[in-house]
Amino acid sequence: MSRFIRHCTGWRRLYSSVGASDIDHFKSILPPAAILSTVSPSALPSAELDPYNNDWMGKYHGSATTVLRPKTTQQVSDIVRWCASRNIAIVPQGGNTGLVGGSVPLHDELIVSLANMNTVRSFDPVSGILVADAGCILQSLTDYVAPHNHIMPIDLGAKGSCHIGGNVATNAGGLRLLRYGSLHGSVLGLEVVLPDGTILDQLTTLRKDNTGYDLKQLFIGAEGTLGIITAVSVLTPPSPQASNNVILALPHFDNVLPLYKTVKRQLSEILSAFEFIDRTAYDLAVKHGQGRALSDEDVDGAACFVLVETSGGRREHDEEKLTDLLTSLLEADSPLINTGVLSQNPAQFSSLWALREGVTEAVSKEGKAYKYDISIPLASFKDVVDATREHLRSKGLLGDHAVKHVLGYGHVGDGNLHLNIIAAAYTQEIQDALEPFVYELVASYRGSISAEHGIGAMKTHALHYSKNDVSIEWMKKIKALFDPLGIMNPGKVLE
Amino acid sequence: MSRFIRHCTGWRRLYSSVGASDIDHFKSILPPAAILSTVSPSALPSAELDPYNNDWMGKYHGSATTVLRPKTTQQVSDIVRWCASRNIAIVPQGGNTGLVGGSVPLHDELIVSLANMNTVRSFDPVSGILVADAGCILQSLTDYVAPHNHIMPIDLGAKGSCHIGGNVATNAGGLRLLRYGSLHGSVLGLEVVLPDGTILDQLTTLRKDNTGYDLKQLFIGAEGTLGIITAVSVLTPPSPQASNNVILALPHFDNVLPLYKTVKRQLSEILSAFEFIDRTAYDLAVKHGQGRALSDEDVDGAACFVLVETSGGRREHDEEKLTDLLTSLLEADSPLINTGVLSQNPAQFSSLWALREGVTEAVSKEGKAYKYDISIPLASFKDVVDATREHLRSKGLLGDHAVKHVLGYGHVGDGNLHLNIIAAAYTQEIQDALEPFVYELVASYRGSISAEHGIGAMKTHALHYSKNDVSIEWMKKIKALFDPLGIMNPGKVLE
Repeated sequence: MSRFIRHCTGWRRLYSSVGASDIDHFKSILPPAAILSTVSPSALPSAELDPYNNDWMGKYHGSATTVLRPKTTQQVSDIVRWCASRNIAIVPQGGNTGLVGGSVPLHDELIVSLANMNTVRSFDPVSGILVADAGCILQSLTDYVAPHNHIMPIDLGAKGSCHIGGNVATNAGGLRLLRYGSLHGSVLGLEVVLPDGTILDQLTTLRKDNTGYDLKQLFIGAEGTLGIITAVSVLTPPSPQASNNVILALPHFDNVLPLYKTVKRQLSEILSAFEFIDRTAYDLAVKHGQGRALSDEDVDGAACFVLVETSGGRREHDEEKLTDLLTSLLEADSPLINTGVLSQNPAQFSSLWALREGVTEAVSKEGKAYKYDISIPLASFKDVVDATREHLRSKGLLGDHAVKHVLGYGHVGDGNLHLNIIAAAYTQEIQDALEPFVYELVASYRGSISAEHGIGAMKTHALHYSKNDVSIEWMKKIKALFDPLGIMNPGKVLE
Repeated sequence: MSRFIRHCTGWRRLYSSVGASDIDHFKSILPPAAILSTVSPSALPSAELDPYNNDWMGKYHGSATTVLRPKTTQQVSDIVRWCASRNIAIVPQGGNTGLVGGSVPLHDELIVSLANMNTVRSFDPVSGILVADAGCILQSLTDYVAPHNHIMPIDLGAKGSCHIGGNVATNAGGLRLLRYGSLHGSVLGLEVVLPDGTILDQLTTLRKDNTGYDLKQLFIGAEGTLGIITAVSVLTPPSPQASNNVILALPHFDNVLPLYKTVKRQLSEILSAFEFIDRTAYDLAVKHGQGRALSDEDVDGAACFVLVETSGGRREHDEEKLTDLLTSLLEADSPLINTGVLSQNPAQFSSLWALREGVTEAVSKEGKAYKYDISIPLASFKDVVDATREHLRSKGLLGDHAVKHVLGYGHVGDGNLHLNIIAAAYTQEIQDALEPFVYELVASYRGSISAEHGIGAMKTHALHYSKNDVSIEWMKKIKALFDPLGIMNPGKVLE
């Protein structure tokens, strides 16, 4: 059995399907329990592979016949070497929590799950440097370093099931990016099995190392298309001793940016989140039961809201800074805010966060959502939301019959806007009105069509809106250099 | 005129020397004032090129006949395209402040100086994102963002003459790395002229952009061997409002690490430096007039010293944290420190820093220094210094006739040790005793033979002590992919 499928360089190439002789070979590498296959003689029912073949949103569906669950880097290397010799395509799979279809097969590629590679290799409580197998779950690592007063530099909604290897492969952003920066800074080393089976060991535990090209950077965000990350060395920051938050109501969007400047200056190193919610998003959150934290008086006349979080080393200092900030904001001659609500205890702290995080749930309750995760200059957040709404209006698509709401929320501090369009139903007409309109709009600001979710299988066709021809050409050259056979996660990132 | 010289892949290849016809062509690209050449008809005296042909230490000497000083990216592209067609090798040059001979020619390569590309392209005071030509001087950029309450994420001794493009090309570390992380995190975008003249424009101003491979990372730390960086987009942090420091005297080296843990936990987000000085280094600093800050009583019984700096948003909070830290350290049942001296005013602040920074000057006054800039695990700082001293002793080289002192100081927080060996004179015997001994010692800890200075022309032969064969092989493949002719800064990074 074999087929032709499109591969990254645009040529058609033969990939082999996994056959009985391959399974025999895999048995020489792995114990029987680490091989799940519908191929004879194991002949598992295909339903057993469903959790590997489908993504958690139920949007992407592969038809892999075989899942391998290696325990060691050498096993991964042996598997990949065999696949290279046999032209078998591979999908590396972590927690399978991605949003763009990057971790499930397009066809019947072999799935290599890292789930059994879940051991912490070392942790140095002095430097905070953690070395862990790629299959370690993010929450487990958070729990591992907590007793040493450290935290992981990233935090995500999916932390209970996503793998650190997948986080690195997708350059996950998440809630701590404003404070701790991107994984390009906090990942110190990687161990990667290259598409020919070679083990590239760059698993240093050094904060500084200027000895030649920093090759590991290429695998951060490559979504498994250049090799399989098998282990990660990461710098973990010290735990903050205290966290506080406040919700601010603003009379105009134009106040968001001066407010951000003021807050950055006054809170300085303890600022850990600056989240924006427009009025439409807020009203929906309230409508669907997420807005209990604020009174009617608080929200009266507010065009939008900002959630500010602090994380610092001493509670009383942080509270004093936050109180002083609020006082100076409210007592200013031309106040940037109408009002501010400061959390007084852990329950209120969670309640304020729930208002921001509840927007996602409110949106899904309100209707069918077209979601765009974009990076654009901070100053253009409102322009993009307004332009999208006006565009839909000009097409006669605004109203209860089609698009009910256009709203924006997101991470001001990261320049990351979640643009949501809520419709009564998914229709081709709305889809056609939105794309390529939104992508072109983002491109006009030199923005990114994928701030943190990646390209995966979903956005390969739209890559050119955020990357120019020269950049895409060089991405293809890099892909061809590392993976000349095109067997590593084909059809992801590059078409 | 032409010669064979060794190029990165190990083959011998023909590079052309710059001739009169090349100068004619460069005149079609650049105004006359931007072309400095000893070739007829300009026929400048070669002394005029000395500042470009020699590094500031006077250790490396090139024999370039021509220096070009383009003003625009397009000019750089036109120059490189011509050189590629003519097989002329190029050395990109920034402030020429490097320590490893990376920015001067080995022979008569063409020098492309970025000094005329010195314009700030944009600065967004809200996000703190700065876009600047590669030739902007670091201090100028610091001055540029200061009125907006921002600072550059790096600071170096050479800030008055080094260029931001050179900082990025060498992945400069410097004094702020502990706090603001490496340039791999804070550089958001680059514009690079590739070795065939193509302009790779990845000059985004986005904090988050997960649209494919992060190619720009390859140029950070490539020391100009993969292309010429012509512009940089960098995230600048908000200025701290207050800085304080304290010197702590420790009875044993073994206390450094528990002290670092304690200080990290108590000072948390305001800790901005944790610098180590061993007793030998301290005594030399005193001997050469740098040690006025401490009394005899303070240093009595001290095996080593630590300088702690804080940078925070509010002076009184920072001082309270620092005072509480000192109190808890001194009142502990088994104190980690003998004593601590806290700066009370800006003059004392500078005085304490001078003690640490004065070690460099004291070393140069004391004798001829063999300097190693290495990364190793924090716990092994003393072992490496001691092992080096014992090794020299075993060779009969310790004493006034040969090696007078072996000492260590550096950035504990970054795992970066400056190992200095001070001798009466530079001799081959000492050199042979030190190398490969020191490199092998570093390798035994999986350390880095160049923490922040790079490889340049100086350490290409020693690269294998910090990078394994697979890594070096892949570096060569990357070099061959971007620069198949090998014309870009030949003989640097890779032999």
